[in-house]
Amino acid sequence: MARKRLPAPELFASALAGDRSSLARLLSLIERGDDEAREIGRLAYPLSGDGYTVGLTGAPGAGKSTLTSSIIGHLRSLDLEIAVLAIDPSSPFTGGAILGDRVRMQDHATDPGVFIRSMATRGHLGGLSLATPEAVRALDAIGRRWILVETVGVGQVEVEVAGKADTTVVVVNPGWGDSVQANKAGLMEIADVFVINKADRKGADETRRDLMQMLDLSDLAHEAWRPPILNTTGTTGEGVPELWEAVLSHRAHAEESGILKERRTFRLREELREIIAQRLGRKARAICTGTRWDELTEEVVERTTDPWTAADEMLAAVDA
Amino acid sequence: MARKRLPAPELFASALAGDRSSLARLLSLIERGDDEAREIGRLAYPLSGDGYTVGLTGAPGAGKSTLTSSIIGHLRSLDLEIAVLAIDPSSPFTGGAILGDRVRMQDHATDPGVFIRSMATRGHLGGLSLATPEAVRALDAIGRRWILVETVGVGQVEVEVAGKADTTVVVVNPGWGDSVQANKAGLMEIADVFVINKADRKGADETRRDLMQMLDLSDLAHEAWRPPILNTTGTTGEGVPELWEAVLSHRAHAEESGILKERRTFRLREELREIIAQRLGRKARAICTGTRWDELTEEVVERTTDPWTAADEMLAAVDA
Repeated sequence: MARKRLPAPELFASALAGDRSSLARLLSLIERGDDEAREIGRLAYPLSGDGYTVGLTGAPGAGKSTLTSSIIGHLRSLDLEIAVLAIDPSSPFTGGAILGDRVRMQDHATDPGVFIRSMATRGHLGGLSLATPEAVRALDAIGRRWILVETVGVGQVEVEVAGKADTTVVVVNPGWGDSVQANKAGLMEIADVFVINKADRKGADETRRDLMQMLDLSDLAHEAWRPPILNTTGTTGEGVPELWEAVLSHRAHAEESGILKERRTFRLREELREIIAQRLGRKARAICTGTRWDELTEEVVERTTDPWTAADEMLAAVDA
Repeated sequence: MARKRLPAPELFASALAGDRSSLARLLSLIERGDDEAREIGRLAYPLSGDGYTVGLTGAPGAGKSTLTSSIIGHLRSLDLEIAVLAIDPSSPFTGGAILGDRVRMQDHATDPGVFIRSMATRGHLGGLSLATPEAVRALDAIGRRWILVETVGVGQVEVEVAGKADTTVVVVNPGWGDSVQANKAGLMEIADVFVINKADRKGADETRRDLMQMLDLSDLAHEAWRPPILNTTGTTGEGVPELWEAVLSHRAHAEESGILKERRTFRLREELREIIAQRLGRKARAICTGTRWDELTEEVVERTTDPWTAADEMLAAVDA
């Protein structure tokens, strides 16, 4: 099965023309993050900017994937073309289970109006935080106007990535289990809309009161936008149209108030800083090699020198 | 309440002499990660190396903190002096809840043979991965021979940090809920010992079979050390002495086989690389300022240039 590997620009052109398998390969290149990824980035950048990203995040087991599936159904009923990026390692979308029976995704998988893609969360530090906006821009460039990004809201990198959507929906469950305790503050900070999913279960009212109290106590209470709290049942789709209305309201607010432009500018600056830091990091890896490097690490291991002194010496060698 | 701020070397000397509040402040400085942290690092480094770290990791809600509490009790009954670092954002140790009644930690909190400290997981990327080994070395330097590190096993950075212990215990529960699906592969990779906690619940046998099957299929099956699978009930302490025996067996194996030295060398090399990368990152932040930076980011926002071209220009300015 030797398949000819297309160069990045041809792959991009083919994806732009609507070829789904080219798009899939394009996203794999972006995930890998090497020079070809940067080439794709340069091509996609000027064509992007009209897409709008909606992030869905929450603890593992909160039902994000089932909810995402219901949202896809709702958006398709409105005849919107969408793309979904699943960055949640617990997502059934991730790891090739899309066609499994765990969630009813079969309809979506064969629907040309839906493109679903999972992104690996493991690998180099920072890989995810650069690959995600790049993947979003590629999907934006090929004409998807709505891009849903599903992330697990636990972990330092993951919450940072989750906070980079234009509208961020934080999914919680009745009861606020231990799993939601994790990074509660981080999730509060990035929420534009709260969803109590599995709202048919016991404890939804208490959870709502909890959230309202936390909002009252937080800085968000003084902002022009107070995150609304919606109830959904992902499995039946109940509450999903109302959730989507809340997303649209937030979008309208963000656009009119100038917050959207502010956020995007802030994000791009951060990304630019990170690109520069990563390039320098590559330089660091290039430094960390050779005889002197081997000697220095041995000295650190033997504790005749400490890591900071060793780092100083390696860095001085570069500047010289 | 103006408290005189001691310089880092004096604080270190005071912690070394056994003053707990100095130790606590020392760890706060390490957490902050600035120049003082590096100074402490240089002081602690030559004095460290005899401590042994045991990592406990698993999904939020797996009962890691209760289990940790039981392990502390067991080690204290053996008259061992220990330190505990809690890096789990869902841990009741984190966020000042140590004296709460959620877990029975009151005894430990006033026991001079136990030092418990939580580390913040939020902040700059990579902050955690440098602060954790530094904190471990400070505890090691002041003479703690056993250092337990509790981390949440979800998230890219967190799993990496969890994998950096001398012996890593992965905590799962009967049933392998959705929350355990997250990063299953990552957790399998770092496990030296598996614990099925809450083993009194239904499904412990199936979970054991699951784990054994996963071990058979993994590369670990061909290694000299096959991770044993223990049952515990954190709330009653049942199985905890056996768990500790398994940790001791792994330690003996790691020491005799040379794996411990290999791992520590590998970790130090990684850390040294990261120190160098972070220094360069600081340089990057210094670059990203000034008139040309403002102009370039504006061009990126307006999409007249792309982030990679802008990064190239900023980097060229440094090298010139």
